[in-house]
Amino acid sequence: MDRTISPLEKARLGYRPAGPAVLAAGTARVKPTDGEASASRDQADSLRESFPDLFGAPAVRFESGTADRARRPLTVGVVLSGGQAPGGHNVIAGLHDALADWHADSRLLGFLGGPRGVFESNHRELTPAEIDAHRNTGGFDMIGSGRDKIESTDQLAACRATSSKLGLDGLLVIGGDDSNTNAAVLAQYFVTHGQPTVVVGAPKTIDGDLKGGGLEASFGFDTATKVYSELIGNVERDARSAKKYWHFIKLMGRSASHVTLECALATRPNIALIGEEVRKEGWTLNRLTERIAGAVRERAAAGRPYGVCLVPEGLIEFLPEVGALIEEINGLLAGGVDGAALSQRLTPQSAGVYEALPDRIREQLLLDRDSHGNVQVSRIDTEVLLIETVRRRLAEDGEYKARFQAQHHFFGYEGRCAAPSNFDADYTAALGRVAALLIAHGKTGYICRVGNLAAPAAEWTAGGIPLTSFMTREKRKGEWMPVIAKALVALDGAPFLEFAKHRDAWQSDDAYVYPGPIQYFGPAEVTERTTATLQLEAGER
Amino acid sequence: MDRTISPLEKARLGYRPAGPAVLAAGTARVKPTDGEASASRDQADSLRESFPDLFGAPAVRFESGTADRARRPLTVGVVLSGGQAPGGHNVIAGLHDALADWHADSRLLGFLGGPRGVFESNHRELTPAEIDAHRNTGGFDMIGSGRDKIESTDQLAACRATSSKLGLDGLLVIGGDDSNTNAAVLAQYFVTHGQPTVVVGAPKTIDGDLKGGGLEASFGFDTATKVYSELIGNVERDARSAKKYWHFIKLMGRSASHVTLECALATRPNIALIGEEVRKEGWTLNRLTERIAGAVRERAAAGRPYGVCLVPEGLIEFLPEVGALIEEINGLLAGGVDGAALSQRLTPQSAGVYEALPDRIREQLLLDRDSHGNVQVSRIDTEVLLIETVRRRLAEDGEYKARFQAQHHFFGYEGRCAAPSNFDADYTAALGRVAALLIAHGKTGYICRVGNLAAPAAEWTAGGIPLTSFMTREKRKGEWMPVIAKALVALDGAPFLEFAKHRDAWQSDDAYVYPGPIQYFGPAEVTERTTATLQLEAGER
Repeated sequence: MDRTISPLEKARLGYRPAGPAVLAAGTARVKPTDGEASASRDQADSLRESFPDLFGAPAVRFESGTADRARRPLTVGVVLSGGQAPGGHNVIAGLHDALADWHADSRLLGFLGGPRGVFESNHRELTPAEIDAHRNTGGFDMIGSGRDKIESTDQLAACRATSSKLGLDGLLVIGGDDSNTNAAVLAQYFVTHGQPTVVVGAPKTIDGDLKGGGLEASFGFDTATKVYSELIGNVERDARSAKKYWHFIKLMGRSASHVTLECALATRPNIALIGEEVRKEGWTLNRLTERIAGAVRERAAAGRPYGVCLVPEGLIEFLPEVGALIEEINGLLAGGVDGAALSQRLTPQSAGVYEALPDRIREQLLLDRDSHGNVQVSRIDTEVLLIETVRRRLAEDGEYKARFQAQHHFFGYEGRCAAPSNFDADYTAALGRVAALLIAHGKTGYICRVGNLAAPAAEWTAGGIPLTSFMTREKRKGEWMPVIAKALVALDGAPFLEFAKHRDAWQSDDAYVYPGPIQYFGPAEVTERTTATLQLEAGER
Repeated sequence: MDRTISPLEKARLGYRPAGPAVLAAGTARVKPTDGEASASRDQADSLRESFPDLFGAPAVRFESGTADRARRPLTVGVVLSGGQAPGGHNVIAGLHDALADWHADSRLLGFLGGPRGVFESNHRELTPAEIDAHRNTGGFDMIGSGRDKIESTDQLAACRATSSKLGLDGLLVIGGDDSNTNAAVLAQYFVTHGQPTVVVGAPKTIDGDLKGGGLEASFGFDTATKVYSELIGNVERDARSAKKYWHFIKLMGRSASHVTLECALATRPNIALIGEEVRKEGWTLNRLTERIAGAVRERAAAGRPYGVCLVPEGLIEFLPEVGALIEEINGLLAGGVDGAALSQRLTPQSAGVYEALPDRIREQLLLDRDSHGNVQVSRIDTEVLLIETVRRRLAEDGEYKARFQAQHHFFGYEGRCAAPSNFDADYTAALGRVAALLIAHGKTGYICRVGNLAAPAAEWTAGGIPLTSFMTREKRKGEWMPVIAKALVALDGAPFLEFAKHRDAWQSDDAYVYPGPIQYFGPAEVTERTTATLQLEAGER
């Protein structure tokens, strides 16, 4: 660890996360209490079949008391799965601290490079020095991550072999919806095969789409949206100062538009498109183009030839005609048709849509492929597409005399590895402590829950929710699989309704708010502020 | 001012900038002392002809003492010129505060929308309430800015008419090299025509290319490079965590690469291209491509199929063959050749270069025009060009087996309107105070100087440097004009040498530093840190 670190990183190494008062007295002074059995679901029968030993388990809440388990040394493994999110290192640090508190001889093993590290038993014992060097830092570079799934029978068996060989009392999977689905399947597999390792999950994703059913937020969402909001606010101030450009800003979030919605609530841009609404209303590219062009015209007429428009990454799939085109291309690709031949095999309707797209977008549709060989939606420059369609529309329009000048941005990688905000630093350290408690108390198949998050950290609650209670079934690759469904933006939820109430005013006025960069020190109203999404959702509970 | 402001903006409104001890006792307790006469230059004769009353004036230093001027109310105008830079509002606030301190009945008029506001006498008196609402904020939105120049005789006469009508004792032009050139010309014009208004300039540009000759830094450079370094650090951490992508990051700075160099010193990326070096060495696109492809190969062989490469915006013009192509296209455009015909009229050499460029870049060369009708260099996606040429080179290379995956970013607008760092907030408030003193003491044709900037603010010095001492002559539109030459990166200067000493190690190792976001509160080693550029240059003085 002879890396040069910045003064801020150094100062943050000494930050001591705040956390639930109930956990403050140490792991010996906490006992689990069972709550209600998991609510039944539509798919209950099928899920019970998939998870005979887990389905219907009660939620768990940790309360002050005396732990009724023998305080023997625990050996626990931890793995990071999927894309980076701020706070991952603190989950590991929290887990480490609570395990050491439970018994000084406990050991924490980090699996390297994601789930593959578990299959291949590639791990390293995490020492206190290494943990200390990563407290409150961003990134997943301490042990790496990976996108492998734990799905096939071979993979499950390999995880069992590793757990058995290492004598793992517990395994913490830090990941998003798919990784937590894998954790549930693994937990059941271990029970079925008599492997005593407790498997628990921690909710990670900057997209914010792993929540609901008692889970209030995924970690990383707070920090990432604050980084994007800092930049959006700066761009808004630039737009208003220069009075010259429309800025189209694409934000991460393929399935759900929580990131765009949160950033809109934080910065009040002129336009923010929400994928869930576009899908529900069935708005076409043509319709959206007209809506944006209308805003451009209206603002120019009011002496404001500038603006800011937020675009969620996944928008393009929600436009019915473009979504159909992408689906057709994926179907042709699966059938072995590729290259120039692709565009000739489209249905007349999709061919028409394809022909109307700008060159750059057509090229991206035909050339960029994801690892499954599908159109790589995340690489399509939707923000550039909208600029081009709006530009054409305004050019056709005799009325619009001003020059339409636009800039485009994509904010994604800039926020995934930021050092966690105080909120995320606190939340993740608490999640790690909760993971240790769930493992110590033998609660397998749970996701760590820290609740009451809109209140000060001392008032947070701690516990676990059965992973199966989030599950439904989806057809994947032709087979019905139990999955944790992504939580989409609720169009009748408080965050969207708040946005919908104000958006017309934000479109015509300059109601911009400039949040500025994340502050780690200073007045509490600046440093301890959570997301608008979390605050508004707390008001609904 | 019923705008909703963020908690951080609110907290920052109360920040009281630190400043030179010599100014702390108030405007009545400071007197100007003449330094040496301006050093003579190659162009001295010609410059003396252009500036008969200004050329050769001595530098001025403000020292403790008693002001020997009558403390009568002053009426002063201020104008923001050109692109945004963090701290502009604080220059105005500092000017306002010092004028009020000089005499309670002084008035400050803000010209609206840049220099055009002066020609057209479009202004507003800036009230204490309006000033207070903009303290320590980013953006130029208080009075707006504009890109008009003050050059033609009509414009000079219009400025004189406005100054005369409003009874201006002084006019502060806040701008970059061109705007300060205009300020010098205007100062001489006023003297020549008996207009008693004192004209002074303040050094503004995030590009950092207005410095030297006693001027240590332009304001905004500190804040903007800190915003970019925050983002670069986050992307570096992402690259190292995901171990998958090469990130190519374009940064603002067309003529000079100070921004890229400063960000490289702050974040230690694997590669940073410096335009001045590329030009001096005559490196071609082919050569640069091979250099980057070599780094990609070397890192992949060491198990690091990822990296970060910084690219200055202006790089493309410094590549001899591409620069020649752009010049040819500009020549053809000036001759009325446009559109598809352009590419047919190129010389064989340039046609070859043109044909080898990716489609997207060719399109940008042929279609994007700046306001002078030239190729819009700033909109050419140089970062995408390099990704494409490197990708092709690696594909031709039988040895390279890994997949080259790249992401591109452009950071520019994200930093121009950030709220100023403590350094820039302090520096700009001091510049504004110095402007008031220069005006009160009748020092026309000066640029505000605050010096010893690498030391704590209390030790800063205050004074003025004759604008003419920065000047040389350049041929513009066929005529010899006095201009302030942009300060380029000195390849024998301490910042570049520091970079050059380490860059090979930074290329192969992961020496990344993650500066994190600007902090306004907290430990001084975090909040009061200036740029590496300034610190290293201070070591040379």
